[in-house]
Amino acid sequence: MLIVEYDGTCYHGWQRQQNAVTVQEVLEKALQVIMKEDIAVTGCSRTDAGVHARGFVCNFFTHTNIPADRVPYALNSVLPDDVVILSCHHMQEDFHARYHARSKKYRYRIINRTFPSPFEKHYACHFPYALDVDKMIKATKFLEGQHDFRAFMATGSMVKDTVRNIFEVSITQNNAEIRIDITGDGFLYNMVRIIAGTLIYVGIGKIGVSDISEIIACKDRKKAGITAPPQGLYLMEVRYGDE
Amino acid sequence: MLIVEYDGTCYHGWQRQQNAVTVQEVLEKALQVIMKEDIAVTGCSRTDAGVHARGFVCNFFTHTNIPADRVPYALNSVLPDDVVILSCHHMQEDFHARYHARSKKYRYRIINRTFPSPFEKHYACHFPYALDVDKMIKATKFLEGQHDFRAFMATGSMVKDTVRNIFEVSITQNNAEIRIDITGDGFLYNMVRIIAGTLIYVGIGKIGVSDISEIIACKDRKKAGITAPPQGLYLMEVRYGDE
Repeated sequence: MLIVEYDGTCYHGWQRQQNAVTVQEVLEKALQVIMKEDIAVTGCSRTDAGVHARGFVCNFFTHTNIPADRVPYALNSVLPDDVVILSCHHMQEDFHARYHARSKKYRYRIINRTFPSPFEKHYACHFPYALDVDKMIKATKFLEGQHDFRAFMATGSMVKDTVRNIFEVSITQNNAEIRIDITGDGFLYNMVRIIAGTLIYVGIGKIGVSDISEIIACKDRKKAGITAPPQGLYLMEVRYGDE
Repeated sequence: MLIVEYDGTCYHGWQRQQNAVTVQEVLEKALQVIMKEDIAVTGCSRTDAGVHARGFVCNFFTHTNIPADRVPYALNSVLPDDVVILSCHHMQEDFHARYHARSKKYRYRIINRTFPSPFEKHYACHFPYALDVDKMIKATKFLEGQHDFRAFMATGSMVKDTVRNIFEVSITQNNAEIRIDITGDGFLYNMVRIIAGTLIYVGIGKIGVSDISEIIACKDRKKAGITAPPQGLYLMEVRYGDE
Protein backbone atom coordinates (compact mmCIF):
# COMPACT_ATOMS: atom_id res chain seq x y z
CA MET A 1 0.00 0.00 0.00
CA LEU A 2 1.29 3.45 -0.92
CA ILE A 3 0.45 6.79 0.66
CA VAL A 4 0.67 9.40 -2.09
CA GLU A 5 0.66 13.19 -2.09
CA TYR A 6 -0.05 14.96 -5.34
CA ASP A 7 -0.65 18.38 -6.80
CA GLY A 8 -3.61 17.68 -9.08
CA THR A 9 -3.24 20.86 -11.16
CA CYS A 10 -1.77 19.19 -14.22
CA TYR A 11 -3.75 15.92 -14.03
CA HIS A 12 -7.17 14.85 -15.21
CA GLY A 13 -7.81 13.27 -11.83
CA TRP A 14 -6.65 9.97 -10.43
CA GLN A 15 -8.22 7.41 -12.72
CA ARG A 16 -6.67 6.27 -16.01
CA GLN A 17 -8.26 7.84 -19.09
CA GLN A 18 -7.61 7.73 -22.77
CA ASN A 19 -6.19 10.99 -24.18
CA ALA A 20 -5.54 12.62 -20.80
CA VAL A 21 -2.75 12.28 -18.25
CA THR A 22 -3.84 11.00 -14.83
CA VAL A 23 -2.04 10.30 -11.56
CA GLN A 24 -2.79 6.57 -11.81
CA GLU A 25 -1.09 6.47 -15.20
CA VAL A 26 2.13 8.20 -14.12
CA LEU A 27 2.27 6.05 -10.99
CA GLU A 28 1.76 2.79 -12.92
CA LYS A 29 4.48 3.86 -15.39
CA ALA A 30 6.87 4.57 -12.49
CA LEU A 31 6.09 1.16 -10.95
CA GLN A 32 6.81 -0.48 -14.30
CA VAL A 33 10.21 1.25 -14.46
CA ILE A 34 11.18 0.36 -10.89
CA MET A 35 9.68 -3.12 -10.51
CA LYS A 36 10.07 -4.32 -14.13
CA GLU A 37 6.54 -5.70 -14.25
CA ASP A 38 3.13 -4.45 -15.37
CA ILE A 39 1.31 -3.32 -12.26
CA ALA A 40 -2.33 -2.24 -11.98
CA VAL A 41 -2.95 0.07 -9.05
CA THR A 42 -6.22 0.25 -7.06
CA GLY A 43 -6.96 3.72 -5.71
CA CYS A 44 -8.99 4.63 -2.61
CA SER A 45 -11.18 6.95 -4.67
CA ARG A 46 -11.40 8.78 -7.94
CA THR A 47 -10.44 12.40 -7.65
CA ASP A 48 -11.53 14.91 -10.29
CA ALA A 49 -9.27 16.97 -12.54
CA GLY A 50 -7.49 19.65 -10.50
CA VAL A 51 -8.26 18.07 -7.11
CA HIS A 52 -5.26 17.52 -4.80
CA ALA A 53 -4.27 14.80 -2.35
CA ARG A 54 -2.22 14.89 0.84
CA GLY A 55 -2.79 11.25 1.80
CA PHE A 56 -4.17 9.27 -1.15
CA VAL A 57 -3.99 5.49 -0.59
CA CYS A 58 -3.56 2.86 -3.28
CA ASN A 59 -2.57 -0.79 -3.40
CA PHE A 60 -1.09 -3.27 -5.90
CA PHE A 61 0.51 -6.71 -6.14
CA THR A 62 4.18 -7.07 -6.95
CA HIS A 63 6.89 -9.76 -7.12
CA THR A 64 9.64 -7.24 -6.47
CA ASN A 65 12.26 -7.86 -3.80
CA ILE A 66 12.74 -4.13 -3.13
CA PRO A 67 12.04 -3.69 0.61
CA ALA A 68 8.85 -1.70 1.28
CA ASP A 69 10.70 1.09 3.08
CA ARG A 70 12.93 1.65 0.02
CA VAL A 71 10.05 1.76 -2.47
CA PRO A 72 9.26 5.48 -1.88
CA TYR A 73 12.90 6.44 -2.63
CA ALA A 74 12.88 4.36 -5.81
CA LEU A 75 9.52 5.63 -7.06
CA ASN A 76 10.19 9.29 -6.19
CA SER A 77 13.39 9.14 -8.21
CA VAL A 78 11.38 8.51 -11.39
CA LEU A 79 8.06 10.25 -10.64
CA PRO A 80 7.42 13.86 -11.67
CA ASP A 81 7.79 16.51 -8.91
CA ASP A 82 4.03 16.88 -8.48
CA VAL A 83 3.49 13.26 -7.35
CA VAL A 84 5.33 12.15 -4.19
CA ILE A 85 5.20 8.76 -2.44
CA LEU A 86 5.21 9.39 1.32
CA SER A 87 5.37 5.76 2.47
CA CYS A 88 4.89 2.11 1.45
CA HIS A 89 3.58 -0.72 3.62
CA HIS A 90 3.07 -4.48 3.15
CA MET A 91 -0.60 -5.38 3.53
CA GLN A 92 -2.59 -8.61 3.72
CA GLU A 93 -3.30 -10.01 0.29
CA ASP A 94 -7.02 -9.17 0.41
CA PHE A 95 -6.45 -5.47 1.24
CA HIS A 96 -8.44 -3.17 -1.04
CA ALA A 97 -7.80 0.59 -0.85
CA ARG A 98 -11.37 1.49 -1.82
CA TYR A 99 -13.57 -1.25 -0.35
CA HIS A 100 -11.82 -1.39 3.01
CA ALA A 101 -11.74 2.35 3.70
CA ARG A 102 -13.59 3.13 6.95
CA SER A 103 -13.32 6.89 6.79
CA LYS A 104 -12.03 9.64 4.55
CA LYS A 105 -11.12 13.17 5.43
CA TYR A 106 -11.35 15.96 2.87
CA ARG A 107 -10.38 19.62 3.17
CA TYR A 108 -11.86 22.46 1.16
CA ARG A 109 -9.86 25.72 1.11
CA ILE A 110 -11.42 29.12 0.40
CA ILE A 111 -9.50 32.40 0.08
CA ASN A 112 -12.03 35.00 1.21
CA ARG A 113 -10.79 38.46 0.30
CA THR A 114 -11.35 41.07 -2.38
CA PHE A 115 -8.49 40.12 -4.70
CA PRO A 116 -7.24 36.61 -5.49
CA SER A 117 -3.94 35.47 -4.01
CA PRO A 118 -1.08 35.12 -6.52
CA PHE A 119 -0.09 31.91 -4.68
CA GLU A 120 -3.46 30.16 -4.52
CA LYS A 121 -4.87 30.15 -8.06
CA HIS A 122 -4.57 26.37 -8.34
CA TYR A 123 -4.76 25.61 -4.60
CA ALA A 124 -7.92 27.24 -3.25
CA CYS A 125 -11.26 28.69 -4.28
CA HIS A 126 -11.21 32.49 -4.35
CA PHE A 127 -14.43 34.02 -3.02
CA PRO A 128 -14.45 37.85 -2.97
CA TYR A 129 -17.64 38.60 -0.99
CA ALA A 130 -17.91 38.69 2.82
CA LEU A 131 -18.70 35.30 4.38
CA ASP A 132 -20.37 34.96 7.79
CA VAL A 133 -18.20 32.16 9.12
CA ASP A 134 -20.22 31.82 12.35
CA LYS A 135 -23.30 30.97 10.30
CA MET A 136 -21.31 28.49 8.23
CA ILE A 137 -20.10 26.80 11.42
CA LYS A 138 -23.68 26.57 12.74
CA ALA A 139 -24.80 25.01 9.46
CA THR A 140 -22.22 22.23 9.74
CA LYS A 141 -24.15 20.74 12.67
CA PHE A 142 -27.06 19.93 10.36
CA LEU A 143 -24.74 18.05 8.00
CA GLU A 144 -23.17 15.79 10.62
CA GLY A 145 -24.67 12.33 11.16
CA GLN A 146 -26.19 9.69 8.92
CA HIS A 147 -28.36 11.16 6.16
CA ASP A 148 -29.49 10.49 2.63
CA PHE A 149 -27.23 13.00 0.85
CA ARG A 150 -28.89 12.70 -2.59
CA ALA A 151 -29.31 16.51 -2.72
CA PHE A 152 -25.51 16.77 -2.45
CA MET A 153 -24.70 14.40 -5.33
CA ALA A 154 -23.83 15.53 -8.86
CA THR A 155 -26.77 15.14 -11.24
CA GLY A 156 -26.24 12.13 -13.47
CA SER A 157 -24.43 9.99 -10.90
CA MET A 158 -25.78 6.42 -11.00
CA VAL A 159 -25.15 5.50 -7.34
CA LYS A 160 -28.27 3.89 -5.79
CA ASP A 161 -27.47 3.98 -2.07
CA THR A 162 -27.05 7.65 -1.26
CA VAL A 163 -26.98 7.32 2.53
CA ARG A 164 -23.66 8.40 4.04
CA ASN A 165 -22.44 9.09 7.56
CA ILE A 166 -20.58 12.37 8.11
CA PHE A 167 -18.61 12.06 11.34
CA GLU A 168 -17.44 15.64 11.60
CA VAL A 169 -17.45 18.96 9.76
CA SER A 170 -15.19 21.67 11.16
CA ILE A 171 -14.47 25.14 9.85
CA THR A 172 -11.41 27.16 10.80
CA GLN A 173 -10.37 30.63 9.71
CA ASN A 174 -6.86 32.03 9.54
CA ASN A 175 -6.76 35.53 8.07
CA ALA A 176 -8.26 35.24 4.57
CA GLU A 177 -8.16 31.44 4.51
CA ILE A 178 -11.23 29.42 5.47
CA ARG A 179 -10.80 25.66 5.77
CA ILE A 180 -13.70 23.23 5.76
CA ASP A 181 -12.63 19.78 7.04
CA ILE A 182 -15.10 16.95 6.46
CA THR A 183 -14.69 13.39 7.69
CA GLY A 184 -17.14 10.66 6.75
CA ASP A 185 -17.51 6.99 5.94
CA GLY A 186 -17.79 7.77 2.24
CA PHE A 187 -18.81 10.50 -0.18
CA LEU A 188 -21.06 10.70 -3.25
CA TYR A 189 -19.82 12.16 -6.53
CA ASN A 190 -18.98 15.87 -5.98
CA MET A 191 -20.48 15.69 -2.48
CA VAL A 192 -17.71 17.60 -0.70
CA ARG A 193 -17.63 20.32 -3.36
CA ILE A 194 -21.44 20.69 -3.21
CA ILE A 195 -21.28 20.88 0.60
CA ALA A 196 -18.56 23.57 0.27
CA GLY A 197 -20.67 25.48 -2.26
CA THR A 198 -23.75 25.19 0.00
CA LEU A 199 -21.78 26.45 3.03
CA ILE A 200 -20.59 29.41 0.92
CA TYR A 201 -24.26 30.16 0.15
CA VAL A 202 -24.97 30.01 3.90
CA GLY A 203 -22.04 32.42 4.42
CA ILE A 204 -23.58 35.02 2.09
CA GLY A 205 -27.11 34.47 3.41
CA LYS A 206 -28.49 32.91 0.23
CA ILE A 207 -29.30 29.74 2.20
CA GLY A 208 -30.40 29.89 5.87
CA VAL A 209 -28.56 27.90 8.55
CA SER A 210 -31.56 25.74 9.35
CA ASP A 211 -32.46 25.28 5.67
CA ILE A 212 -29.77 22.59 5.54
CA SER A 213 -32.10 20.00 7.10
CA GLU A 214 -34.79 20.75 4.52
CA ILE A 215 -32.30 20.54 1.66
CA ILE A 216 -31.18 17.11 2.90
CA ALA A 217 -34.83 16.00 3.34
CA CYS A 218 -35.97 17.11 -0.13
CA LYS A 219 -33.18 15.12 -1.87
CA ASP A 220 -33.19 17.71 -4.67
CA ARG A 221 -29.78 18.72 -6.03
CA LYS A 222 -31.23 22.05 -7.18
CA LYS A 223 -31.93 23.14 -3.59
CA ALA A 224 -28.28 22.85 -2.51
CA GLY A 225 -25.58 25.38 -3.42
CA ILE A 226 -23.12 25.47 -6.30
CA THR A 227 -20.45 22.85 -6.86
CA ALA A 228 -17.36 24.66 -5.58
CA PRO A 229 -14.40 24.48 -8.01
CA PRO A 230 -11.97 21.53 -7.87
CA GLN A 231 -8.74 23.38 -7.01
CA GLY A 232 -9.90 23.99 -3.42
CA LEU A 233 -10.35 20.27 -2.66
CA TYR A 234 -7.79 18.02 -0.95
CA LEU A 235 -8.13 14.35 0.00
CA MET A 236 -6.34 14.50 3.35
CA GLU A 237 -6.47 11.05 4.92
CA VAL A 238 -8.06 7.60 4.56
CA ARG A 239 -8.47 5.27 7.52
CA TYR A 240 -8.82 1.49 7.52
CA GLY A 241 -9.80 -1.13 10.10
CA ASP A 242 -9.54 -0.12 13.72
CA GLU A 243 -6.99 2.67 13.29
CA MET B 1 1.91 53.90 -2.82
CA LEU B 2 0.98 50.36 -3.78
CA ILE B 3 1.09 47.24 -1.62
CA VAL B 4 1.86 44.35 -3.94
CA GLU B 5 1.78 40.58 -3.48
CA TYR B 6 3.63 38.46 -6.01
CA ASP B 7 4.65 34.90 -6.72
CA GLY B 8 8.28 35.40 -7.79
CA THR B 9 8.65 31.99 -9.47
CA CYS B 10 8.49 33.28 -13.04
CA TYR B 11 10.33 36.59 -12.47
CA HIS B 12 13.96 37.60 -12.39
CA GLY B 13 13.31 39.55 -9.22
CA TRP B 14 11.79 42.97 -8.75
CA GLN B 15 14.18 45.28 -10.56
CA ARG B 16 14.01 46.01 -14.28
CA GLN B 17 16.60 44.13 -16.33
CA GLN B 18 17.41 43.79 -19.97
CA ASN B 19 16.55 40.38 -21.44
CA ALA B 20 14.64 39.13 -18.38
CA VAL B 21 11.10 39.70 -17.14
CA THR B 22 10.83 41.38 -13.74
CA VAL B 23 7.94 42.42 -11.50
CA GLN B 24 8.81 46.11 -11.88
CA GLU B 25 8.53 45.80 -15.64
CA VAL B 26 5.09 44.12 -15.68
CA LEU B 27 3.83 46.62 -13.09
CA GLU B 28 5.11 49.64 -15.06
CA LYS B 29 3.50 48.24 -18.21
CA ALA B 30 0.19 47.80 -16.38
CA LEU B 31 0.40 51.39 -15.06
CA GLN B 32 1.03 52.61 -18.61
CA VAL B 33 -2.09 50.79 -19.85
CA ILE B 34 -4.32 52.08 -17.02
CA MET B 35 -2.99 55.60 -16.52
CA LYS B 36 -1.96 56.38 -20.11
CA GLU B 37 1.37 57.83 -19.04
CA ASP B 38 4.92 56.52 -18.64
CA ILE B 39 5.42 55.79 -14.97
CA ALA B 40 8.66 54.83 -13.21
CA VAL B 41 8.05 52.88 -10.01
CA THR B 42 10.32 53.01 -6.94
CA GLY B 43 10.42 49.73 -5.02
CA CYS B 44 11.10 49.22 -1.30
CA SER B 45 13.86 46.73 -2.09
CA ARG B 46 15.28 44.54 -4.81
CA THR B 47 14.18 40.96 -4.49
CA ASP B 48 16.12 38.19 -6.20
CA ALA B 49 14.83 35.84 -8.88
CA GLY B 50 12.36 33.36 -7.38
CA VAL B 51 11.82 35.35 -4.17
CA HIS B 52 8.19 36.09 -3.25
CA ALA B 53 6.41 39.05 -1.68
CA ARG B 54 3.30 39.29 0.47
CA GLY B 55 3.56 43.02 1.16
CA PHE B 56 5.99 44.67 -1.25
CA VAL B 57 5.69 48.48 -1.22
CA CYS B 58 6.37 50.80 -4.16
CA ASN B 59 5.58 54.39 -5.07
CA PHE B 60 5.22 56.52 -8.19
CA PHE B 61 3.91 59.87 -9.44
CA THR B 62 0.83 60.07 -11.61
CA HIS B 63 -1.54 62.65 -13.09
CA THR B 64 -4.41 60.16 -13.27
CA ASN B 65 -7.82 61.02 -11.87
CA ILE B 66 -8.60 57.39 -11.02
CA PRO B 67 -9.39 57.38 -7.26
CA ALA B 68 -6.73 55.55 -5.20
CA ASP B 69 -9.19 52.94 -3.94
CA ARG B 70 -10.11 51.98 -7.53
CA VAL B 71 -6.50 51.67 -8.71
CA PRO B 72 -6.07 48.05 -7.44
CA TYR B 73 -9.17 46.94 -9.40
CA ALA B 74 -7.91 48.64 -12.56
CA LEU B 75 -4.34 47.31 -12.29
CA ASN B 76 -5.38 43.78 -11.30
CA SER B 77 -7.59 43.62 -14.40
CA VAL B 78 -4.50 43.92 -16.64
CA LEU B 79 -1.76 42.35 -14.48
CA PRO B 80 -0.87 38.65 -14.78
CA ASP B 81 -2.30 36.33 -12.07
CA ASP B 82 1.00 36.10 -10.20
CA VAL B 83 1.16 39.83 -9.39
CA VAL B 84 -1.72 41.26 -7.31
CA ILE B 85 -2.19 44.83 -6.05
CA LEU B 86 -3.63 44.65 -2.52
CA SER B 87 -4.13 48.37 -1.95
CA CYS B 88 -3.22 51.88 -3.11
CA HIS B 89 -2.79 54.98 -0.97
CA HIS B 90 -2.05 58.67 -1.61
CA MET B 91 1.22 59.70 0.03
CA GLN B 92 3.06 62.97 0.59
CA GLU B 93 5.05 63.98 -2.47
CA ASP B 94 8.43 63.25 -0.84
CA PHE B 95 7.52 59.66 0.13
CA HIS B 96 10.17 57.14 -0.96
CA ALA B 97 9.42 53.41 -0.59
CA ARG B 98 13.07 52.48 -0.02
CA TYR B 99 14.62 55.43 1.85
CA HIS B 100 11.73 55.93 4.25
CA ALA B 101 11.29 52.29 5.29
CA ARG B 102 11.74 51.93 9.06
CA SER B 103 11.47 48.16 9.25
CA LYS B 104 11.09 45.15 7.00
CA LYS B 105 9.82 41.71 7.87
CA TYR B 106 10.95 38.67 5.92
CA ARG B 107 9.85 35.04 6.25
CA TYR B 108 11.91 32.01 5.28
CA ARG B 109 9.99 28.73 4.86
CA ILE B 110 11.64 25.30 5.19
CA ILE B 111 9.91 21.96 4.54
CA ASN B 112 11.77 19.57 6.84
CA ARG B 113 10.87 16.00 5.92
CA THR B 114 12.37 13.12 3.98
CA PHE B 115 10.62 13.73 0.65
CA PRO B 116 9.86 17.09 -0.96
CA SER B 117 6.26 18.33 -0.96
CA PRO B 118 4.57 18.33 -4.40
CA PHE B 119 3.04 21.70 -3.45
CA GLU B 120 6.13 23.53 -2.24
CA LYS B 121 8.77 23.15 -4.95
CA HIS B 122 8.69 26.88 -5.75
CA TYR B 123 7.47 28.07 -2.33
CA ALA B 124 9.83 26.68 0.29
CA CYS B 125 13.30 25.20 0.78
CA HIS B 126 13.18 21.41 1.13
CA PHE B 127 15.61 20.12 3.76
CA PRO B 128 15.53 16.31 4.24
CA TYR B 129 17.69 15.86 7.36
CA ALA B 130 16.50 16.21 10.96
CA LEU B 131 16.70 19.77 12.33
CA ASP B 132 16.97 20.53 16.04
CA VAL B 133 14.53 23.44 16.12
CA ASP B 134 15.17 24.18 19.81
CA LYS B 135 18.81 24.85 19.01
CA MET B 136 17.83 27.03 16.06
CA ILE B 137 15.53 29.07 18.34
CA LYS B 138 18.35 29.51 20.89
CA ALA B 139 20.67 30.72 18.13
CA THR B 140 18.23 33.46 17.08
CA LYS B 141 18.95 35.32 20.35
CA PHE B 142 22.54 35.91 19.23
CA LEU B 143 21.34 37.47 15.97
CA GLU B 144 18.94 39.97 17.50
CA GLY B 145 20.21 43.49 18.19
CA GLN B 146 22.52 45.90 16.40
CA HIS B 147 25.55 44.19 14.87
CA ASP B 148 27.93 44.47 11.96
CA PHE B 149 26.46 41.73 9.76
CA ARG B 150 29.29 41.66 7.18
CA ALA B 151 29.65 37.87 7.67
CA PHE B 152 26.03 37.56 6.51
CA MET B 153 26.42 39.56 3.30
CA ALA B 154 26.95 38.01 -0.14
CA THR B 155 30.58 38.19 -1.25
CA GLY B 156 31.02 40.92 -3.84
CA SER B 157 28.42 43.29 -2.42
CA MET B 158 29.78 46.85 -2.38
CA VAL B 159 27.83 48.19 0.60
CA LYS B 160 30.14 50.02 3.04
CA ASP B 161 28.00 50.35 6.15
CA THR B 162 27.23 46.78 7.15
CA VAL B 163 25.73 47.53 10.57
CA ARG B 164 22.06 46.56 10.81
CA ASN B 165 19.59 46.26 13.66
CA ILE B 166 17.58 43.03 13.83
CA PHE B 167 14.54 43.67 16.01
CA GLU B 168 13.27 40.11 16.21
CA VAL B 169 13.90 36.61 14.89
CA SER B 170 11.21 34.03 15.63
CA ILE B 171 10.97 30.41 14.56
CA THR B 172 7.73 28.46 14.51
CA GLN B 173 7.11 24.85 13.51
CA ASN B 174 3.88 23.37 12.18
CA ASN B 175 4.27 19.72 11.18
CA ALA B 176 7.00 19.63 8.51
CA GLU B 177 7.00 23.40 7.99
CA ILE B 178 9.54 25.59 9.79
CA ARG B 179 9.11 29.35 9.50
CA ILE B 180 11.85 31.82 10.30
CA ASP B 181 10.46 35.35 10.67
CA ILE B 182 13.02 38.16 10.75
CA THR B 183 12.27 41.84 11.33
CA GLY B 184 14.96 44.49 11.09
CA ASP B 185 15.71 48.06 10.05
CA GLY B 186 17.34 46.85 6.85
CA PHE B 187 19.13 43.90 5.33
CA LEU B 188 22.36 43.40 3.40
CA TYR B 189 22.44 41.54 0.09
CA ASN B 190 21.36 37.91 0.69
CA MET B 191 21.43 38.51 4.46
CA VAL B 192 18.14 36.76 5.24
CA ARG B 193 19.03 33.75 3.09
CA ILE B 194 22.47 33.48 4.72
CA ILE B 195 20.88 33.72 8.18
CA ALA B 196 18.43 30.96 7.16
CA GLY B 197 21.29 28.81 5.87
CA THR B 198 23.27 29.43 9.06
CA LEU B 199 20.29 28.49 11.24
CA ILE B 200 19.91 25.28 9.18
CA TYR B 201 23.57 24.53 9.96
CA VAL B 202 22.82 25.12 13.65
CA GLY B 203 19.86 22.73 13.30
CA ILE B 204 22.10 19.90 12.04
CA GLY B 205 24.89 20.66 14.53
CA LYS B 206 27.38 21.90 11.96
CA ILE B 207 27.47 25.28 13.71
CA GLY B 208 27.08 25.57 17.49
CA VAL B 209 24.41 27.81 19.04
CA SER B 210 26.94 30.12 20.69
CA ASP B 211 29.19 30.18 17.60
CA ILE B 212 26.82 32.78 16.15
CA SER B 213 28.43 35.59 18.15
CA GLU B 214 31.88 34.61 16.89
CA ILE B 215 30.67 34.44 13.29
CA ILE B 216 29.25 37.96 13.62
CA ALA B 217 32.46 39.19 15.27
CA CYS B 218 34.82 37.72 12.65
CA LYS B 219 32.94 39.42 9.76
CA ASP B 220 33.96 36.54 7.49
CA ARG B 221 31.28 35.29 5.07
CA LYS B 222 32.99 31.89 4.94
CA LYS B 223 32.26 31.23 8.64
CA ALA B 224 28.48 31.56 8.21
CA GLY B 225 26.27 28.87 6.65
CA ILE B 226 25.09 28.42 3.06
CA THR B 227 22.89 30.91 1.24
CA ALA B 228 19.50 29.17 1.46
CA PRO B 229 17.69 29.01 -1.92
CA PRO B 230 15.46 31.92 -3.05
CA GLN B 231 12.12 30.09 -3.29
CA GLY B 232 11.80 29.92 0.53
CA LEU B 233 12.01 33.70 0.97
CA TYR B 234 9.05 36.09 1.31
CA LEU B 235 9.10 39.86 1.88
CA MET B 236 6.16 40.06 4.29
CA GLU B 237 5.77 43.67 5.39
CA VAL B 238 7.44 47.07 5.27
CA ARG B 239 6.76 49.74 7.87
CA TYR B 240 7.18 53.49 7.58
CA GLY B 241 7.20 56.39 10.01
CA ASP B 242 5.52 55.83 13.37
CA GLU B 243 3.24 52.97 12.35
